[in-house]
Amino acid sequence: MKKQLSASLLPCKFSFSTAACGLKESGLDLALLVSEVPASAACVFTTNLVQAAPVLLSRAHLRRRSGRMRALIVNSGNANCATGPAGLAASRATAGNVARELGCRSEEVLVCSTGVIGVPLRVERILRAVPELVRARGSSASAFSQLMRAIMTTDTRPKWATARFRVGGKQVRLLGCAKGAGMIHPRMATMLSFIATDAAIAPAVLSRALRQAVRGTFNAITVDGDTSTNDTLAVLANGASGAPAIRAGSSAYRKFCSALEEVCRVLALAIVADGEGAERVVEIQVQGAPSDSSAEQVARTIANSPLVKTAFAGADPNWGRILAAAGRAGVPFDPARVTIRLGGMLVCRHGREHPFNERAAHRRLLAPHVPVSVDLHAGKGCARIWTCDFTGDYVTINASYRS
Amino acid sequence: MKKQLSASLLPCKFSFSTAACGLKESGLDLALLVSEVPASAACVFTTNLVQAAPVLLSRAHLRRRSGRMRALIVNSGNANCATGPAGLAASRATAGNVARELGCRSEEVLVCSTGVIGVPLRVERILRAVPELVRARGSSASAFSQLMRAIMTTDTRPKWATARFRVGGKQVRLLGCAKGAGMIHPRMATMLSFIATDAAIAPAVLSRALRQAVRGTFNAITVDGDTSTNDTLAVLANGASGAPAIRAGSSAYRKFCSALEEVCRVLALAIVADGEGAERVVEIQVQGAPSDSSAEQVARTIANSPLVKTAFAGADPNWGRILAAAGRAGVPFDPARVTIRLGGMLVCRHGREHPFNERAAHRRLLAPHVPVSVDLHAGKGCARIWTCDFTGDYVTINASYRS
Repeated sequence: MKKQLSASLLPCKFSFSTAACGLKESGLDLALLVSEVPASAACVFTTNLVQAAPVLLSRAHLRRRSGRMRALIVNSGNANCATGPAGLAASRATAGNVARELGCRSEEVLVCSTGVIGVPLRVERILRAVPELVRARGSSASAFSQLMRAIMTTDTRPKWATARFRVGGKQVRLLGCAKGAGMIHPRMATMLSFIATDAAIAPAVLSRALRQAVRGTFNAITVDGDTSTNDTLAVLANGASGAPAIRAGSSAYRKFCSALEEVCRVLALAIVADGEGAERVVEIQVQGAPSDSSAEQVARTIANSPLVKTAFAGADPNWGRILAAAGRAGVPFDPARVTIRLGGMLVCRHGREHPFNERAAHRRLLAPHVPVSVDLHAGKGCARIWTCDFTGDYVTINASYRS
Repeated sequence: MKKQLSASLLPCKFSFSTAACGLKESGLDLALLVSEVPASAACVFTTNLVQAAPVLLSRAHLRRRSGRMRALIVNSGNANCATGPAGLAASRATAGNVARELGCRSEEVLVCSTGVIGVPLRVERILRAVPELVRARGSSASAFSQLMRAIMTTDTRPKWATARFRVGGKQVRLLGCAKGAGMIHPRMATMLSFIATDAAIAPAVLSRALRQAVRGTFNAITVDGDTSTNDTLAVLANGASGAPAIRAGSSAYRKFCSALEEVCRVLALAIVADGEGAERVVEIQVQGAPSDSSAEQVARTIANSPLVKTAFAGADPNWGRILAAAGRAGVPFDPARVTIRLGGMLVCRHGREHPFNERAAHRRLLAPHVPVSVDLHAGKGCARIWTCDFTGDYVTINASYRS
């Protein structure tokens, strides 16, 4: 990200801190995000049946406190997943210790983990670090930058986004960060994303806004089709901006939703662009499907096809693979009516090749962002999914035996 | 295949021939398989909505002749798919020319193609070669070996299988071959397999036997989850063994089914073992699922997970990825009851790590055939799927820009 994160972009009354507690071999692996006043919280968690201990605990905390939270603690280096009752106890102890130091209830703390699956978490290392972590928190841009680094695993760069808008003459700020990469590094799990805002908004309204923002952003990206066991997106809204409370359906609500969606979109695209081994983002737009959901099914099948993704790694204008992937998506359409555009160039019409300049098409596919459009001419449904290309580096990263 | 193909393994009254007609840059690219007497035929075709012209034509021929066929012509180098009405006319002309030279009806000829999708077929090259192709046919083992080579694309070796059994004192023979590889080479499509037998069996009975044989063999393999547009498995049974006709439900039928399934199994596994870039075959056995079909769903999700397949490329005993893939398969089970074995070694019990010797596990995963067993403890359903590992060579083969 070239844009600088300045203090004026930080929402009020949030603080951050980090530590290297020894879960990773080196570097920051523990981070804390605190709202200095109770905040509304809304989360979206993984839909995988296998859910990590911190996901189970955070779900329960949100429910018990009806979405009123104070803090969020994250460790990288271990996903604390498939770790049995001991794993759940570890997450619970983590939340408990943070709460004690902060002077809040244990249920007001969300817990997130990312890293190896199935390896017991050395929670004592986290617990030892908590007192200093809580004490040392600060609200500077550099404290937030450290937090972004502490949650990275195979990510090659920190990912953040901000948005601002005005309500009742007051500035409201949103600040978000994310970690992603391959979904999974050797036994690693997870997409994590946190958004802090000083908007005043009730938990139920926040939750509704979040669910809407996620649909076309975080739920419209794929790196390898593998849903992790730890995926968590959490938003904390503490009202510290002093702006009036945002009510559902108001014009302030619409402003908030569009700011939230903008932050989610930037973070989601940054995750795809930093997909393990990825060289380019491929935006798959399907239209003319019998319905929006069948359009999404076709777009996802194309986006997850190893043959399509490897062709993009070679910048090969291989529309035949796209057509073949669409054909196995389980959606009815007439192949003889399909139109395909690669990088804006018409390459397939009426289901067969439309003469095009191969060299020019190849050049367009070398761009960092490649739009692909598929029109099935079978209805009015449409959908958009972002994916990345599938390179030899993805295999190298994921096939290397854990050392 | 180390076993030698001898004349005694060839079914009676079948003949073969090949040609290099110029569809590939070099080498054999056209093959003919003829039954010298009318034969019962049964086929299984791709389920992809996008179907190549030869698939559409062969389907129609089978229907029109109620499964009585004489010959099968195959070209490699061009899939004749997404080629519009001209593609269908090309397949029809091919069948027509073979029929004229053989002295049979055009509808008694099956047509198969494998190769690039979306590029017009230079059918005149095929048509020019047909007269000599029909004339030069022979029934030697070497003629069949040539046929196996003529249908290869990214395959690294020919794949064949034979079986024999006795009915009424007469020997009945089955001989099959297949081509596979990645499903798709740059714009290439297809798994093709042909089985010739001198059994006497009515088309409807043959078709029933074939559907049964395919379920646990060809339909239980995956290389990259991409279903090609040209997949065809064809069986011709000409009765030339002199053995009495095989009736459904008889003991001869059971012998035939088991011989047919054996041939299909050997060919299907040979395709996986020769998957693009593959170094090992991974056999995924799922048991304890709510039903057989949900077991298959879990097995397929594991078998197609890029993260699982890259881990096998690195011989990494990464059971966490297997558990995570199972968890997103859409099948209900309790993660805390799952057992996973890799290469026969217990690595996960009650959904968490069962202490194991990592080095020993790594060694077992280096084998050319690795069994993986997953017990969900959620019912009696079971399924088995064969897949291969996902190496950097797969990406290299599929990402290289077509020259």
